[in-house]
Amino acid sequence: MLLFETVREMGHEQILFCHGKNPDIRAIIAIHDTTLGPAMGATRLFPYLNEEAALKDALRLSRGMTYKAACANIPAGGGKAVIIANPENKTDEMLRAYGRFVNSLNGRFITGQDVNITPHDVRTISQETNFVVGVSEKSGGPAPITALGVFLGIKAAVEFRWQTQRLEGLKVAIQGVGNVGKNLCRHLHEQGMKLYVSDVNPVKTEELKKLFDVTVVNPDEIISLDVDIFAPCALGGILNSHTIPFLQAPIIAGAANNQLGNEQLHSQMLAKKGILYCPDYVINAGGLINVYNEMIGYDEEKAFKQVHNIYYTLLEIFHIAKQQGITTNDAAKRLAEDRILNTKHSKAKEIAA
Amino acid sequence: MLLFETVREMGHEQILFCHGKNPDIRAIIAIHDTTLGPAMGATRLFPYLNEEAALKDALRLSRGMTYKAACANIPAGGGKAVIIANPENKTDEMLRAYGRFVNSLNGRFITGQDVNITPHDVRTISQETNFVVGVSEKSGGPAPITALGVFLGIKAAVEFRWQTQRLEGLKVAIQGVGNVGKNLCRHLHEQGMKLYVSDVNPVKTEELKKLFDVTVVNPDEIISLDVDIFAPCALGGILNSHTIPFLQAPIIAGAANNQLGNEQLHSQMLAKKGILYCPDYVINAGGLINVYNEMIGYDEEKAFKQVHNIYYTLLEIFHIAKQQGITTNDAAKRLAEDRILNTKHSKAKEIAA
Repeated sequence: MLLFETVREMGHEQILFCHGKNPDIRAIIAIHDTTLGPAMGATRLFPYLNEEAALKDALRLSRGMTYKAACANIPAGGGKAVIIANPENKTDEMLRAYGRFVNSLNGRFITGQDVNITPHDVRTISQETNFVVGVSEKSGGPAPITALGVFLGIKAAVEFRWQTQRLEGLKVAIQGVGNVGKNLCRHLHEQGMKLYVSDVNPVKTEELKKLFDVTVVNPDEIISLDVDIFAPCALGGILNSHTIPFLQAPIIAGAANNQLGNEQLHSQMLAKKGILYCPDYVINAGGLINVYNEMIGYDEEKAFKQVHNIYYTLLEIFHIAKQQGITTNDAAKRLAEDRILNTKHSKAKEIAA
Repeated sequence: MLLFETVREMGHEQILFCHGKNPDIRAIIAIHDTTLGPAMGATRLFPYLNEEAALKDALRLSRGMTYKAACANIPAGGGKAVIIANPENKTDEMLRAYGRFVNSLNGRFITGQDVNITPHDVRTISQETNFVVGVSEKSGGPAPITALGVFLGIKAAVEFRWQTQRLEGLKVAIQGVGNVGKNLCRHLHEQGMKLYVSDVNPVKTEELKKLFDVTVVNPDEIISLDVDIFAPCALGGILNSHTIPFLQAPIIAGAANNQLGNEQLHSQMLAKKGILYCPDYVINAGGLINVYNEMIGYDEEKAFKQVHNIYYTLLEIFHIAKQQGITTNDAAKRLAEDRILNTKHSKAKEIAA
């Protein structure tokens, strides 16, 4: 794989290969775009089959973070780090060595917790660098703010689809009621919506039955329910060639990451079925908004205000998609690219002035 | 080329791929080892045939800088940067974009001038970062100090070879009398040595004839003269399978970079012929000592004192080579690796204490 050819196409600014023998460490930090601000992206530790697989993951996910931050309207760019290691071989020394590499970038890259990295690990990394988020827990975790963002996304989708602000009586199927799903149920219940939930853990669904009068359904059935809105809040890859034919909900709006099995293919399948899909990284940006605010000094009011951007941004994305005859997924990318380009131009003007 | 496999063998800490579209830039910054201090290494701009060739050059040269700094006994590590570009397409915008990448490493990498980079270019880069050397000209350039280092190297070689401190009457052939060669001639002349010089520019040799009573010889003949010391101070690759059979001097001690066509092969050929070779990067470290001192605040006395280390280091290298039955080139690497390892151990002890 020729790196410069690949990044020429994908547009990355910097790829840093980090290596150490004692402690043993191999990590790749990809910085996609810092036009809007420092590159934010969590660190994933994974026993990648080979270096190329690790590099591809870092390149793809860091670009996704650029789009996510731009759509969330926060002054941050996109990055991602992958540590090539077996989780069983993870040591504090390795994490601290990794922290020193992060620190060497002096704030151009700010990281946090992803697959196989625990909050404890993040604190270990933070012994070597300040450029980590999610160490303090000032905000009480990202779940409430993420759930609010998804709720606002549902409002935007309903408004665009049916030209109404009325949510009462609409049926929503929520797949997965962990911290985010549960908080989402509270918002929807307050609006008088009818809730159908599933979870692999029956303790969680039983709790929700008591709290918000939900109907509990079998995890196998949640996707194909005849409802107005399907909210995937559990697994990634849930929207694929096997599941899409069974979907009946005209709106998909949920918190799960990477909902589309294949971004291009499955976003087009949804569009052809006439389903309005809220791009996952736009509607679930509450988590990023939360860590961003933790980083700059947490102010609950400010963070919750920023989350309301999700509503306006999704409306804009739906309009772009309709006007240009493209999927909402492509419209979100176009919106992000436009925001970055505008900032580039105004920066260039400032320099010229 | 699998990067992590390669660096596992060569021992690099960080490889940074830098990319930008506007301005167009592709650069690789390789940081080999920072045990002794920040990685110092000049920036080379070159129209490499492909990315792999550029990467190989950066990896090889950055490792060489680690050895050079360690042998020079300065608290610096080894790095190197290559910009993949045609010199005709070099622009100030490109250099400034490159400067921002250098700056993003926040002092872990300090750079200067190499092939196709002019002092003007270094000043352009310095508009974006303080981590460049050779911008100020406090020291009056590196030539006098480099020449002094080579002179001290010649003293060490004569002492080791013939157990004498007497230089008077010895014959030296100097290939190339640019700034360094000319300053070297002054030192040697002061000791009463007999000088034979060649240069492609007859103006320079004529000047030296008047100044130091040198014998001017044809550039084709300088290598095969029957002298005591051959001092290559011009081209790289001058010690190769074609030239070595013609060498008559029992000592090679000169300022040129990369004198060996092939490091392993030709250092062994020299050893087999019984020729005492002063590894180029050890004897010509005066230039690095000069920029290092410019960086920390130039103090002529201090810089000239440090250059005297070249004398002691070369004596140590000659002894290691003799004792262990290896080439002086390998002995220099072993010395550098030992110094780095010792520092690593004492740092580890400090942390443990």
